[in-house]
Amino acid sequence: MNGSAAEGAARISARLRELYAVSDDPGGLTRLTLSPSHKRAVDLVSRWMQEAGLATRLDPTGTVVGRREGPNASAKTLLIGSHIDSVRNGGMFDGPLGVVLAIEVLRRLGNLGRKLPFAVEVLAFGDEEGVRFPTALTGSRAAAGTFDPAALDSRDAAGVSRRDALTAFGCDPAWIAAEARDPARTLGYLEVHIEQGPVLETRGLPLGVVTAINGASRGEIVIKGVAGHSGTIPMHMRHDAAAAGAQALLAIEDVGRSFEDLVATVGRFDIPNGAVNVVPGAARLSVDVRSPSDRDRALALKAIRTRVQAIAQQRGVTADLAITYDMPAAPCDPALMQRFERAFARQGYEPFRLPSGAGHDAMAFRGRIPIAMLFVRCRGGVSHRPDEFASDADIACALAVMEDYVETFAARA
Amino acid sequence: MNGSAAEGAARISARLRELYAVSDDPGGLTRLTLSPSHKRAVDLVSRWMQEAGLATRLDPTGTVVGRREGPNASAKTLLIGSHIDSVRNGGMFDGPLGVVLAIEVLRRLGNLGRKLPFAVEVLAFGDEEGVRFPTALTGSRAAAGTFDPAALDSRDAAGVSRRDALTAFGCDPAWIAAEARDPARTLGYLEVHIEQGPVLETRGLPLGVVTAINGASRGEIVIKGVAGHSGTIPMHMRHDAAAAGAQALLAIEDVGRSFEDLVATVGRFDIPNGAVNVVPGAARLSVDVRSPSDRDRALALKAIRTRVQAIAQQRGVTADLAITYDMPAAPCDPALMQRFERAFARQGYEPFRLPSGAGHDAMAFRGRIPIAMLFVRCRGGVSHRPDEFASDADIACALAVMEDYVETFAARA
Repeated sequence: MNGSAAEGAARISARLRELYAVSDDPGGLTRLTLSPSHKRAVDLVSRWMQEAGLATRLDPTGTVVGRREGPNASAKTLLIGSHIDSVRNGGMFDGPLGVVLAIEVLRRLGNLGRKLPFAVEVLAFGDEEGVRFPTALTGSRAAAGTFDPAALDSRDAAGVSRRDALTAFGCDPAWIAAEARDPARTLGYLEVHIEQGPVLETRGLPLGVVTAINGASRGEIVIKGVAGHSGTIPMHMRHDAAAAGAQALLAIEDVGRSFEDLVATVGRFDIPNGAVNVVPGAARLSVDVRSPSDRDRALALKAIRTRVQAIAQQRGVTADLAITYDMPAAPCDPALMQRFERAFARQGYEPFRLPSGAGHDAMAFRGRIPIAMLFVRCRGGVSHRPDEFASDADIACALAVMEDYVETFAARA
Repeated sequence: MNGSAAEGAARISARLRELYAVSDDPGGLTRLTLSPSHKRAVDLVSRWMQEAGLATRLDPTGTVVGRREGPNASAKTLLIGSHIDSVRNGGMFDGPLGVVLAIEVLRRLGNLGRKLPFAVEVLAFGDEEGVRFPTALTGSRAAAGTFDPAALDSRDAAGVSRRDALTAFGCDPAWIAAEARDPARTLGYLEVHIEQGPVLETRGLPLGVVTAINGASRGEIVIKGVAGHSGTIPMHMRHDAAAAGAQALLAIEDVGRSFEDLVATVGRFDIPNGAVNVVPGAARLSVDVRSPSDRDRALALKAIRTRVQAIAQQRGVTADLAITYDMPAAPCDPALMQRFERAFARQGYEPFRLPSGAGHDAMAFRGRIPIAMLFVRCRGGVSHRPDEFASDADIACALAVMEDYVETFAARA
């Protein structure tokens, strides 16, 4: 299998390079949803699917669906997907790896003449990054049956609505609701993706099994103190909003460290009208807390709130924490995870579990269809940049595991 | 004296209101150096000086000089001054109080027919705030003999050089060097100014004697860590530049608290390209350290440098502190300070000493001519804002002390 997996990995990375050139920006990869380059990517992926023996169609949200039929009309369906849209000036692997690898798995199974007692659909979503419109995941949400029609009215920076962009793309939004897969007839949703973090590289592992796509809370802390002249207000008479903000930042970091697998980040720290010679009268901090455990995330937010209030009180300033975004965790299905670990063992890889800190199409299926994800090591944990990289050797590992996974899945379907 | 001082204070505050209306901005006071409103203020102040019996002239830097002659050609001169330019949307008292009060002192001495064995010059400088040009204090530096001709080439935002602005104002820059006062023939430079800080108000005192105009260092700390996805980098693998910056800010505050009369401020804290979902890869902090003691200021900067390096090392980031501005302290003359304290005692006020955290024209005379400053309480420590306020009662105290000071100065001149 290994020699043949290496050959498959070479084909996958050649196709990733081909897709990387499909861009609206000649200097780098920029392939926003429903753009001309997205259309060219749809055509390319459809052709690869057809060559792998799949029947293809473009769904009403712009997702390419490639279907391998099951033995009969009552056969259930296994979904395997990822996305082919990108951020601006993005990398080659974020999204397309999962799509192109799934196509390669089915191509090889077809070539080998393997029969499977279930149908398989490869889903190449086109709206994961959320760069063009304020809404995202419309493709995976349509498949999950959780599509919100309000997303059709969201508009891009040029004022174009998603509805109009879909129509121009050749999609009919009236049919989106019909895309909802029947959970009773769907075996699960699998997704292969680069880790976009440094954990696998640090552990020296090519692959990991995702435990959950972390839930996330985002918010802002607004601190109000008393502004003043930096030369004339003695230290003991100050109500310095930025000093309170600095303490809050360190408290947030400390809370982040005190829960396993939780991360807490202050990515923005603003002093409005700040000047070198002014004691800051106000400060604004962003807060981003993520965890595979919704309970831990709630406890962490509560701890942050308590500690920030104590800091504010001690300094004679006010501090308000407003949560502006709250997304529950999407836990992976224990049975599907165990199947991954058994495939790891058969292919000679050490099973290793880790949460996903970034969002993925898989999370759209939360509570509807069981999900599982396979992470592939990426160099330096780097993503969303042109130097994003996963090696052919690691892609070969992922291909071997996924091929094993799909073949052996047959046993219980 | 008190009743009469109250009357004088009422005249002073009426004139301050009149000057407050002389603005280039109809909505508030904006009187930048060498602007049309500065010209109108020059005319108004010249008239008041003349009414007080002073001979007036506009010096080559735009300073109004009002002179009361001494008894003979060998008499020395006492200088009393402050400034009549303002910040944008400034207050009524910052600068003009010292000018208008000095004129009132001389008006009253003249009305009383007092002879003084020395000459007095009231200096209404016009370039203290440094808002229009990148250079400032040109008027006081010219009088001190420390004028740097390079200031003539500095340009405002519209590209107008100070040289051209002076010429248009009716000044001839060729004569600036001749303004340097001879230290051997100058008794000292006195300045009355609002405190621009909260110390006197907190102590319940109307007046204070300034010990020194603080020396000041300004600089910037640049921290470089490793940027990353806020969801995918575990806490223990981060090199968060903003967290290091927050620790640096608190260390700077702590150093500020550990020296008497020293202040240390971080007024700007920037995370370049900061975003809610990005672990900060860089942070920039401004640093402002001021002290009446140059030795303490140097020790504080050394302590900040050491502590910031320790933080950087501990977090695996780099941190560089660059000092961009360094101004030594201008200590007030002990004999002139004691004269103020004796005048306080005679007028029934408690002597109290404090440093000046803000810069003033007086500091231009450092090392050349002995200086002393009288601070007047201002409400809430507020300055550089329309709600800047000093009461008539406190102005009356300052007037009584200054009148006493000048009259008794005769004894030794």
